[in-house]
Amino acid sequence: MKISDAEIKKTASKISPKLKAALKQAIENVKVFHQKQVEKSWSFKGKNGEVLGQKIRPLKRVGLYVPGGAGAYPSTLIMNAVPAIVAGVKELVVVSPGLHSAVAFVLRELGIKEFYHIGGAQAVGFLTYVAGVDKIVGPGNVFAAFAKKEVFGTVDIDMIAGPSEIAVLADSTANPEWVAADMLSQAEHGSGFEASVCVTDSMLFAKKLAVCVDRQVKASPKREILEKSLAAYGRIFVAKSMKAGVDIVNRLAPEHLEIVAKNQDELEKLVENAGAIFIGPYSSEPVGDYFAGPNHVLPTNGTARFASPLGVYDFIKRTSIIKYNRGALLKNGENIAEMANSEGFYHHMRAIIIRM
Amino acid sequence: MKISDAEIKKTASKISPKLKAALKQAIENVKVFHQKQVEKSWSFKGKNGEVLGQKIRPLKRVGLYVPGGAGAYPSTLIMNAVPAIVAGVKELVVVSPGLHSAVAFVLRELGIKEFYHIGGAQAVGFLTYVAGVDKIVGPGNVFAAFAKKEVFGTVDIDMIAGPSEIAVLADSTANPEWVAADMLSQAEHGSGFEASVCVTDSMLFAKKLAVCVDRQVKASPKREILEKSLAAYGRIFVAKSMKAGVDIVNRLAPEHLEIVAKNQDELEKLVENAGAIFIGPYSSEPVGDYFAGPNHVLPTNGTARFASPLGVYDFIKRTSIIKYNRGALLKNGENIAEMANSEGFYHHMRAIIIRM
Repeated sequence: MKISDAEIKKTASKISPKLKAALKQAIENVKVFHQKQVEKSWSFKGKNGEVLGQKIRPLKRVGLYVPGGAGAYPSTLIMNAVPAIVAGVKELVVVSPGLHSAVAFVLRELGIKEFYHIGGAQAVGFLTYVAGVDKIVGPGNVFAAFAKKEVFGTVDIDMIAGPSEIAVLADSTANPEWVAADMLSQAEHGSGFEASVCVTDSMLFAKKLAVCVDRQVKASPKREILEKSLAAYGRIFVAKSMKAGVDIVNRLAPEHLEIVAKNQDELEKLVENAGAIFIGPYSSEPVGDYFAGPNHVLPTNGTARFASPLGVYDFIKRTSIIKYNRGALLKNGENIAEMANSEGFYHHMRAIIIRM
Repeated sequence: MKISDAEIKKTASKISPKLKAALKQAIENVKVFHQKQVEKSWSFKGKNGEVLGQKIRPLKRVGLYVPGGAGAYPSTLIMNAVPAIVAGVKELVVVSPGLHSAVAFVLRELGIKEFYHIGGAQAVGFLTYVAGVDKIVGPGNVFAAFAKKEVFGTVDIDMIAGPSEIAVLADSTANPEWVAADMLSQAEHGSGFEASVCVTDSMLFAKKLAVCVDRQVKASPKREILEKSLAAYGRIFVAKSMKAGVDIVNRLAPEHLEIVAKNQDELEKLVENAGAIFIGPYSSEPVGDYFAGPNHVLPTNGTARFASPLGVYDFIKRTSIIKYNRGALLKNGENIAEMANSEGFYHHMRAIIIRM
């Protein structure tokens, strides 16, 4: 199932010059952003000369699932592989049910050599038991998702992503045509369960927006998909004030949040829960989905209350370092033995006492 | 089930002065270490004036399970609560099936006011559905552990910890009595499944160690517990060299690793997988379990290949910030639209085009 370098090269050569330039710039932007997430090992000396520290190292071998039976998703490859590469992961194993020219091009740009033509649950099994990776990331179909749950513990996995969500927090200064366009960009994913929500303090804006959405849906080549999704989770909320709107947003904890309002920066400060925040009329969600630099793998289904975007921190492991010397042990041994004894751990206490 | 401030204060007053002093110093050490893990929000301006960033905020409300039917485990409270407090978590809810003086004392030292007298699976349900926390941490019995798995997704949880493990990498310069004492401190936990392992390059040392272990076990008030655990997972490996010993350690990926050898610092650099590394003869595991500062909640069961100690990073969430302006959108719009179109996302493309 391994695709040779020569074949990847040949497939990559079929990419259009325009798409090539776009992907190159996207990779560069995503690299620049994620480099800011790099953490360094550290250590310090305590007052009795003991050394304490934290070692940070990249995971050794990571598996990456790129969907691709029907379409090509080079952005998925970029968003999952770049943080791993920036973290210092040396061995990246990519699996996909298809190899399209754009994905092949990104593989070559990122220097990834291990690509296997395999998809579904069996691809997850392959990564875990044959390729021997430490972690599997990347979205798959429902079979791949359940397989990832199954192998979790033997390997690490990223979160199981739910349907995508957008919430637009907009006041009457927002352009309803633009907001409608952004809501539709969420509804088009095709699961029928995407949430496309607007929260506003203006009933007039809400009505304008509804008209724009209807008109854009009717004109869309994807009309049926949009109608299904919007009927399920397409909503416009009218709040008493923009601050009350923020409360709604915080309860939704949306994957993507756009804020388009006069006092947008002030409102942004009140947001507690969101995967990514897009501020101002020109920060349309696809800017971040593809290009700006931050990751497009974001917490869904309200988990932004406690979860974070995929990042460099997902591809490292930390190890604590403790180096006590004789003086430090003699100085603190009584305290340590006292605590161990109080918890009923006789042999913990004894391991200290024997050294004193 | 809520225990009043007055009752916590009264219970705390029963603590012995010696244990009180030990706990105070332990809290201070754990705080100092975890303060080094604090991360700050950041942002930067791109070349077209766009602003990109990462906001870091503490979780709002965290639940902490402290075991305590039979014994008192103040160290569990310290190790789970301090990183949350250092992260900036304002609302900590502690549950435990018992309230002992040492735990009450630590509650007061840490300024935690919400304590409920409840344990088991129902405590996990209480934290999730009544107390409304965002994350639950802390070890419980098997019922609490399965309950945590059940509520995962509605709230975040820490890892489900397996039985504890120690591996001692020792050459012939190590003191076999001390190494034996450390192995027994692991075997005494009582699950019968703790791993107490030594890896050495010296057959003579291995034989001395076996004698010491036997003698210490026979003299122990916990002899039966130790024998059961050591029979299951107590082992001494003799490797061809210390470097070959490190290979064994890396495959074990132990929760705790002690290195006692002439070239211990050199060997430490070769270790890829371990939760915490204790270097030198005076760095007995209980030094870290109770007192030194690094966390005692560590990855078990080989998961140190990809997992980290509990830390401040477990109590924060990150949000990406994207703020594009008109110029940045006009400059990059073609590229973004090209990528969206190549993946078949018509409305993603349209959301960009409509703004151009």
